[in-house]
Amino acid sequence: MMQELDLSSVYRLLEPGPVVLLTTAHHERANVMTLSWHMMVDFVPPLVACVVSQNDFSFAALRATKECVIALPDSGLAPTVVAVGNASGRDIDKFAAFGLTPMAASQVAAPLVAECFANLECRVIDTRLVPRFNLFVLEVVRAWRDPTRSNPKTIHHHGHGSFVIDGESLRLESKMP
Amino acid sequence: MMQELDLSSVYRLLEPGPVVLLTTAHHERANVMTLSWHMMVDFVPPLVACVVSQNDFSFAALRATKECVIALPDSGLAPTVVAVGNASGRDIDKFAAFGLTPMAASQVAAPLVAECFANLECRVIDTRLVPRFNLFVLEVVRAWRDPTRSNPKTIHHHGHGSFVIDGESLRLESKMP
Repeated sequence: MMQELDLSSVYRLLEPGPVVLLTTAHHERANVMTLSWHMMVDFVPPLVACVVSQNDFSFAALRATKECVIALPDSGLAPTVVAVGNASGRDIDKFAAFGLTPMAASQVAAPLVAECFANLECRVIDTRLVPRFNLFVLEVVRAWRDPTRSNPKTIHHHGHGSFVIDGESLRLESKMP
Repeated sequence: MMQELDLSSVYRLLEPGPVVLLTTAHHERANVMTLSWHMMVDFVPPLVACVVSQNDFSFAALRATKECVIALPDSGLAPTVVAVGNASGRDIDKFAAFGLTPMAASQVAAPLVAECFANLECRVIDTRLVPRFNLFVLEVVRAWRDPTRSNPKTIHHHGHGSFVIDGESLRLESKMP
Protein backbone atom coordinates (compact mmCIF):
# COMPACT_ATOMS: atom_id res chain seq x y z
CA MET A 1 0.00 0.00 0.00
CA MET A 2 1.54 3.30 -1.10
CA GLN A 3 0.45 6.73 0.11
CA GLU A 4 1.86 9.96 -1.16
CA LEU A 5 4.74 11.28 0.96
CA ASP A 6 5.37 14.99 1.25
CA LEU A 7 8.51 15.91 -0.68
CA SER A 8 9.87 17.78 2.34
CA SER A 9 10.26 14.43 4.16
CA VAL A 10 12.27 12.67 1.47
CA TYR A 11 15.69 13.56 2.92
CA ARG A 12 14.82 11.65 6.10
CA LEU A 13 14.76 8.44 4.05
CA LEU A 14 18.06 8.87 2.19
CA GLU A 15 20.24 10.87 4.58
CA PRO A 16 20.87 7.78 6.78
CA GLY A 17 22.66 6.12 3.82
CA PRO A 18 20.67 2.89 3.30
CA VAL A 19 21.21 0.45 0.46
CA VAL A 20 18.46 1.18 -2.08
CA LEU A 21 17.15 -0.16 -5.36
CA LEU A 22 17.12 1.93 -8.52
CA THR A 23 14.72 1.11 -11.33
CA THR A 24 14.72 2.25 -14.95
CA ALA A 25 12.61 1.55 -18.03
CA HIS A 26 14.12 1.65 -21.48
CA HIS A 27 12.96 0.16 -24.79
CA GLU A 28 9.85 -1.14 -22.99
CA ARG A 29 11.98 -3.07 -20.56
CA ALA A 30 12.18 -2.43 -16.83
CA ASN A 31 15.33 -3.08 -14.87
CA VAL A 32 16.42 -2.80 -11.24
CA MET A 33 19.86 -2.43 -9.68
CA THR A 34 21.27 -2.15 -6.16
CA LEU A 35 22.78 1.19 -5.16
CA SER A 36 24.70 2.45 -2.14
CA TRP A 37 26.46 5.45 -3.66
CA HIS A 38 23.84 8.18 -3.23
CA MET A 39 23.43 11.29 -1.09
CA MET A 40 21.03 14.16 -0.52
CA VAL A 41 21.90 17.43 -2.30
CA ASP A 42 18.97 19.65 -1.27
CA PHE A 43 15.83 19.46 0.87
CA VAL A 44 12.97 20.97 -1.22
CA PRO A 45 12.63 20.13 -3.95
CA PRO A 46 14.55 17.06 -2.85
CA LEU A 47 17.69 16.67 -4.94
CA VAL A 48 19.76 13.50 -4.82
CA ALA A 49 23.13 12.65 -6.34
CA CYS A 50 24.04 9.08 -7.26
CA VAL A 51 26.82 7.22 -9.03
CA VAL A 52 25.73 4.59 -11.55
CA SER A 53 28.71 2.93 -13.17
CA GLN A 54 29.10 2.77 -16.91
CA ASN A 55 29.45 -0.98 -16.42
CA ASP A 56 25.92 -1.19 -15.06
CA PHE A 57 23.21 -2.07 -17.55
CA SER A 58 21.10 0.71 -15.97
CA PHE A 59 23.62 3.40 -16.99
CA ALA A 60 22.45 3.64 -20.61
CA ALA A 61 18.79 3.63 -19.56
CA LEU A 62 19.30 6.37 -17.00
CA ARG A 63 21.27 8.50 -19.40
CA ALA A 64 18.84 8.07 -22.28
CA THR A 65 15.52 8.34 -20.45
CA LYS A 66 16.64 10.68 -17.63
CA GLU A 67 14.17 8.96 -15.33
CA CYS A 68 14.39 6.46 -12.50
CA VAL A 69 12.78 5.36 -9.26
CA ILE A 70 14.70 4.96 -6.01
CA ALA A 71 13.01 2.28 -3.91
CA LEU A 72 13.77 1.62 -0.24
CA PRO A 73 13.93 -2.01 0.87
CA ASP A 74 13.84 -3.00 4.52
CA SER A 75 16.19 -5.54 6.06
CA GLY A 76 13.83 -8.44 5.30
CA LEU A 77 14.57 -7.88 1.61
CA ALA A 78 18.36 -8.05 2.13
CA PRO A 79 18.82 -11.40 0.33
CA THR A 80 16.80 -10.06 -2.61
CA VAL A 81 18.77 -6.81 -2.66
CA VAL A 82 22.04 -8.75 -2.84
CA ALA A 83 20.70 -11.09 -5.54
CA VAL A 84 19.69 -8.01 -7.58
CA GLY A 85 23.20 -6.63 -7.10
CA ASN A 86 24.82 -9.88 -8.22
CA ALA A 87 22.89 -10.13 -11.51
CA SER A 88 22.66 -7.97 -14.61
CA GLY A 89 19.60 -6.85 -16.52
CA ARG A 90 21.57 -7.64 -19.66
CA ASP A 91 20.94 -11.32 -18.97
CA ILE A 92 17.64 -11.62 -17.14
CA ASP A 93 14.42 -9.87 -16.09
CA LYS A 94 15.42 -9.22 -12.49
CA PHE A 95 11.89 -8.37 -11.35
CA ALA A 96 10.66 -11.81 -12.41
CA ALA A 97 13.81 -13.64 -11.34
CA PHE A 98 13.82 -12.26 -7.80
CA GLY A 99 10.11 -11.91 -7.08
CA LEU A 100 9.86 -8.13 -7.18
CA THR A 101 6.62 -6.52 -8.39
CA PRO A 102 6.86 -3.49 -10.69
CA MET A 103 4.05 -0.95 -10.18
CA ALA A 104 3.27 1.98 -12.45
CA ALA A 105 4.69 5.29 -11.27
CA SER A 106 2.85 8.55 -11.89
CA GLN A 107 5.51 10.89 -13.30
CA VAL A 108 8.13 8.59 -14.80
CA ALA A 109 8.19 5.43 -16.89
CA ALA A 110 10.45 3.59 -14.44
CA PRO A 111 8.42 1.38 -12.10
CA LEU A 112 7.90 1.53 -8.35
CA VAL A 113 8.78 -1.63 -6.41
CA ALA A 114 5.73 -2.90 -4.52
CA GLU A 115 7.77 -4.77 -1.89
CA CYS A 116 9.67 -1.62 -0.85
CA PHE A 117 8.41 0.60 1.99
CA ALA A 118 9.03 3.82 0.04
CA ASN A 119 9.49 4.81 -3.60
CA LEU A 120 10.86 8.05 -5.04
CA GLU A 121 10.11 9.05 -8.62
CA CYS A 122 13.12 10.92 -10.01
CA ARG A 123 14.21 12.91 -13.05
CA VAL A 124 17.83 13.58 -13.98
CA ILE A 125 18.49 17.32 -13.80
CA ASP A 126 22.27 17.56 -14.19
CA THR A 127 24.67 15.36 -16.12
CA ARG A 128 27.81 17.51 -16.14
CA LEU A 129 29.67 15.07 -13.90
CA VAL A 130 28.58 11.95 -15.80
CA PRO A 131 31.49 11.85 -18.26
CA ARG A 132 34.15 12.11 -15.55
CA PHE A 133 32.49 10.44 -12.55
CA ASN A 134 29.25 8.68 -13.63
CA LEU A 135 27.57 11.07 -11.18
CA PHE A 136 23.94 12.01 -11.85
CA VAL A 137 21.95 14.69 -10.03
CA LEU A 138 18.26 13.79 -9.67
CA GLU A 139 15.17 15.67 -8.57
CA VAL A 140 12.56 13.68 -6.68
CA VAL A 141 9.31 14.69 -8.33
CA ARG A 142 6.91 12.47 -6.40
CA ALA A 143 7.31 10.24 -3.36
CA TRP A 144 5.36 7.30 -1.93
CA ARG A 145 5.44 5.50 1.36
CA ASP A 146 3.65 2.54 2.87
CA PRO A 147 2.03 4.04 6.01
CA THR A 148 1.41 0.59 7.52
CA ARG A 149 5.15 0.07 7.98
CA SER A 150 6.05 2.61 10.61
CA ASN A 151 9.66 1.92 11.57
CA PRO A 152 11.32 -0.17 8.88
CA LYS A 153 14.95 -1.14 9.47
CA THR A 154 17.27 -0.56 6.54
CA ILE A 155 20.63 -2.11 5.65
CA HIS A 156 23.99 -0.42 5.11
CA HIS A 157 26.81 -1.94 3.05
CA HIS A 158 30.28 -2.20 4.59
CA GLY A 159 31.81 -3.91 1.56
CA HIS A 160 32.24 -7.52 0.41
CA GLY A 161 28.72 -8.60 1.36
CA SER A 162 28.98 -7.33 4.92
CA PHE A 163 25.89 -5.36 5.94
CA VAL A 164 24.80 -3.63 9.13
CA ILE A 165 21.12 -3.43 10.06
CA ASP A 166 19.68 -0.38 11.81
CA GLY A 167 19.90 -0.74 15.58
CA GLU A 168 18.59 1.41 18.39
CA SER A 169 17.44 5.00 18.03
CA LEU A 170 18.88 8.01 19.76
CA ARG A 171 17.28 11.43 20.11
CA LEU A 172 19.40 14.53 20.63
CA GLU A 173 18.48 18.19 20.49
CA SER A 174 19.60 19.19 17.02
CA LYS A 175 19.07 22.50 15.27
CA MET A 176 19.54 20.71 11.95
CA PRO A 177 16.46 19.79 9.88
CA MET B 1 46.39 5.94 17.99
CA MET B 2 46.28 6.26 14.20
CA GLN B 3 47.75 3.79 11.73
CA GLU B 4 47.79 4.28 7.99
CA LEU B 5 44.82 2.68 6.26
CA ASP B 6 45.14 1.39 2.71
CA LEU B 7 43.25 3.69 0.34
CA SER B 8 41.45 0.71 -1.19
CA SER B 9 39.58 0.23 2.12
CA VAL B 10 38.26 3.78 2.42
CA TYR B 11 34.92 3.09 0.71
CA ARG B 12 34.06 0.59 3.45
CA LEU B 13 33.98 3.46 5.94
CA LEU B 14 31.79 5.89 3.98
CA GLU B 15 29.53 3.65 1.90
CA PRO B 16 27.35 2.83 4.97
CA GLY B 17 26.36 6.51 5.20
CA PRO B 18 27.47 7.49 8.73
CA VAL B 19 27.35 10.99 10.14
CA VAL B 20 30.91 12.34 9.90
CA LEU B 21 32.90 15.41 10.88
CA LEU B 22 34.61 17.60 8.30
CA THR B 23 37.54 19.79 9.29
CA THR B 24 39.13 22.70 7.46
CA ALA B 25 41.93 25.17 8.19
CA HIS B 26 41.83 28.68 6.82
CA HIS B 27 43.65 31.85 7.85
CA GLU B 28 45.45 29.82 10.56
CA ARG B 29 42.16 28.79 12.08
CA ALA B 30 40.82 25.23 12.22
CA ASN B 31 37.13 24.50 12.11
CA VAL B 32 34.94 21.40 12.26
CA MET B 33 31.41 20.77 11.05
CA THR B 34 28.96 17.87 11.04
CA LEU B 35 28.13 16.29 7.68
CA SER B 36 25.67 13.65 6.51
CA TRP B 37 25.46 14.54 2.84
CA HIS B 38 28.35 12.58 1.37
CA MET B 39 28.79 9.53 -0.84
CA MET B 40 31.51 7.44 -2.47
CA VAL B 41 32.23 8.23 -6.14
CA ASP B 42 35.06 5.82 -6.91
CA PHE B 43 37.09 3.09 -5.16
CA VAL B 44 40.78 3.75 -5.96
CA PRO B 45 41.84 6.42 -5.67
CA PRO B 46 38.91 6.91 -3.32
CA LEU B 47 36.72 9.77 -4.53
CA VAL B 48 33.99 11.23 -2.36
CA ALA B 49 31.28 13.78 -3.10
CA CYS B 50 29.85 15.99 -0.39
CA VAL B 51 27.50 18.94 -0.07
CA VAL B 52 28.67 21.78 2.16
CA SER B 53 26.13 24.58 2.27
CA GLN B 54 27.07 28.15 1.46
CA ASN B 55 25.59 28.98 4.84
CA ASP B 56 28.21 26.87 6.59
CA PHE B 57 31.30 28.72 7.81
CA SER B 58 33.36 25.83 6.38
CA PHE B 59 32.19 26.55 2.83
CA ALA B 60 34.59 29.45 2.23
CA ALA B 61 37.49 27.54 3.77
CA LEU B 62 36.84 24.45 1.66
CA ARG B 63 36.49 26.48 -1.50
CA ALA B 64 39.59 28.59 -0.88
CA THR B 65 41.99 25.94 0.46
CA LYS B 66 40.59 22.93 -1.46
CA GLU B 67 41.54 20.75 1.48
CA CYS B 68 39.67 19.03 4.29
CA VAL B 69 39.66 16.01 6.57
CA ILE B 70 36.69 13.70 6.94
CA ALA B 71 36.74 12.19 10.45
CA LEU B 72 34.57 9.28 11.56
CA PRO B 73 33.07 9.48 15.05
CA ASP B 74 31.60 6.45 16.78
CA SER B 75 28.26 6.49 18.58
CA GLY B 76 29.89 7.49 21.88
CA LEU B 77 30.67 10.85 20.32
CA ALA B 78 27.05 11.44 19.25
CA PRO B 79 26.39 14.29 21.74
CA THR B 80 29.61 15.99 20.60
CA VAL B 81 28.71 15.52 16.93
CA VAL B 82 25.33 17.17 17.50
CA ALA B 83 26.89 20.02 19.51
CA VAL B 84 29.32 20.62 16.64
CA GLY B 85 26.38 20.67 14.23
CA ASN B 86 24.46 23.15 16.38
CA ALA B 87 27.30 25.72 16.57
CA SER B 88 29.17 27.78 14.00
CA GLY B 89 32.90 28.35 13.66
CA ARG B 90 32.02 31.98 13.00
CA ASP B 91 31.36 32.37 16.71
CA ILE B 92 33.62 29.93 18.55
CA ASP B 93 36.58 27.55 18.33
CA LYS B 94 34.57 24.35 18.18
CA PHE B 95 37.57 22.09 18.90
CA ALA B 96 38.13 23.82 22.24
CA ALA B 97 34.45 24.28 23.02
CA PHE B 98 33.54 20.61 22.52
CA GLY B 99 36.70 18.86 23.68
CA LEU B 100 37.96 17.68 20.32
CA THR B 101 41.72 17.41 19.74
CA PRO B 102 43.13 18.59 16.41
CA MET B 103 46.14 16.57 15.21
CA ALA B 104 48.44 17.48 12.33
CA ALA B 105 47.61 15.71 9.07
CA SER B 106 50.36 14.74 6.61
CA GLN B 107 49.09 15.98 3.24
CA VAL B 108 46.66 18.77 4.08
CA ALA B 109 46.51 21.72 6.48
CA ALA B 110 43.13 20.67 7.88
CA PRO B 111 43.53 18.71 11.12
CA LEU B 112 42.70 15.12 11.97
CA VAL B 113 40.39 14.61 14.96
CA ALA B 114 42.11 12.48 17.60
CA GLU B 115 38.85 11.24 19.14
CA CYS B 116 37.61 9.78 15.85
CA PHE B 117 38.31 6.16 14.88
CA ALA B 118 39.31 7.06 11.31
CA ASN B 119 40.46 10.18 9.46
CA LEU B 120 40.60 10.79 5.71
CA GLU B 121 42.82 13.55 4.30
CA CYS B 122 41.10 15.00 1.22
CA ARG B 123 41.74 17.41 -1.62
CA VAL B 124 38.99 19.02 -3.72
CA ILE B 125 39.34 17.81 -7.33
CA ASP B 126 36.16 19.09 -8.98
CA THR B 127 34.10 22.20 -8.24
CA ARG B 128 31.87 22.36 -11.32
CA LEU B 129 28.75 21.61 -9.27
CA VAL B 130 29.58 24.04 -6.47
CA PRO B 131 27.82 27.09 -7.94
CA ARG B 132 24.54 25.24 -8.54
CA PHE B 133 24.52 22.61 -5.77
CA ASN B 134 27.34 23.30 -3.26
CA LEU B 135 28.61 19.86 -4.31
CA PHE B 136 32.35 19.20 -4.02
CA VAL B 137 34.20 16.16 -5.35
CA LEU B 138 37.15 15.14 -3.14
CA GLU B 139 40.01 12.72 -3.51
CA VAL B 140 41.15 10.95 -0.36
CA VAL B 141 44.94 11.25 -0.49
CA ARG B 142 45.80 9.57 2.81
CA ALA B 143 43.77 7.63 5.34
CA TRP B 144 44.22 6.75 9.02
CA ARG B 145 42.48 4.36 11.33
CA ASP B 146 42.78 3.46 14.99
CA PRO B 147 43.50 -0.30 14.89
CA THR B 148 42.61 -0.74 18.57
CA ARG B 149 38.94 0.01 17.82
CA SER B 150 37.88 -2.97 15.77
CA ASN B 151 34.15 -2.65 15.30
CA PRO B 152 33.05 0.91 16.05
CA LYS B 153 29.34 1.65 15.77
CA THR B 154 28.44 4.74 13.78
CA ILE B 155 25.35 6.94 13.80
CA HIS B 156 22.97 7.79 10.95
CA HIS B 157 20.78 10.89 10.89
CA HIS B 158 17.05 10.50 10.21
CA GLY B 159 16.30 14.21 10.58
CA HIS B 160 15.38 16.52 13.46
CA GLY B 161 17.89 15.06 15.90
CA SER B 162 16.73 11.49 15.42
CA PHE B 163 19.67 9.12 14.95
CA VAL B 164 19.97 5.38 14.45
CA ILE B 165 22.99 3.50 15.77
CA ASP B 166 24.46 0.54 13.88
CA GLY B 167 22.83 -2.72 14.96
CA GLU B 168 23.60 -6.31 14.08
CA SER B 169 25.70 -7.43 11.15
CA LEU B 170 24.59 -9.58 8.27
CA ARG B 171 26.81 -11.41 5.81
CA LEU B 172 25.54 -12.32 2.34
CA GLU B 173 27.37 -13.60 -0.70
CA SER B 174 27.86 -10.47 -2.75
CA LYS B 175 29.84 -10.09 -5.96
CA MET B 176 30.13 -6.38 -5.21
CA PRO B 177 33.39 -5.04 -3.72
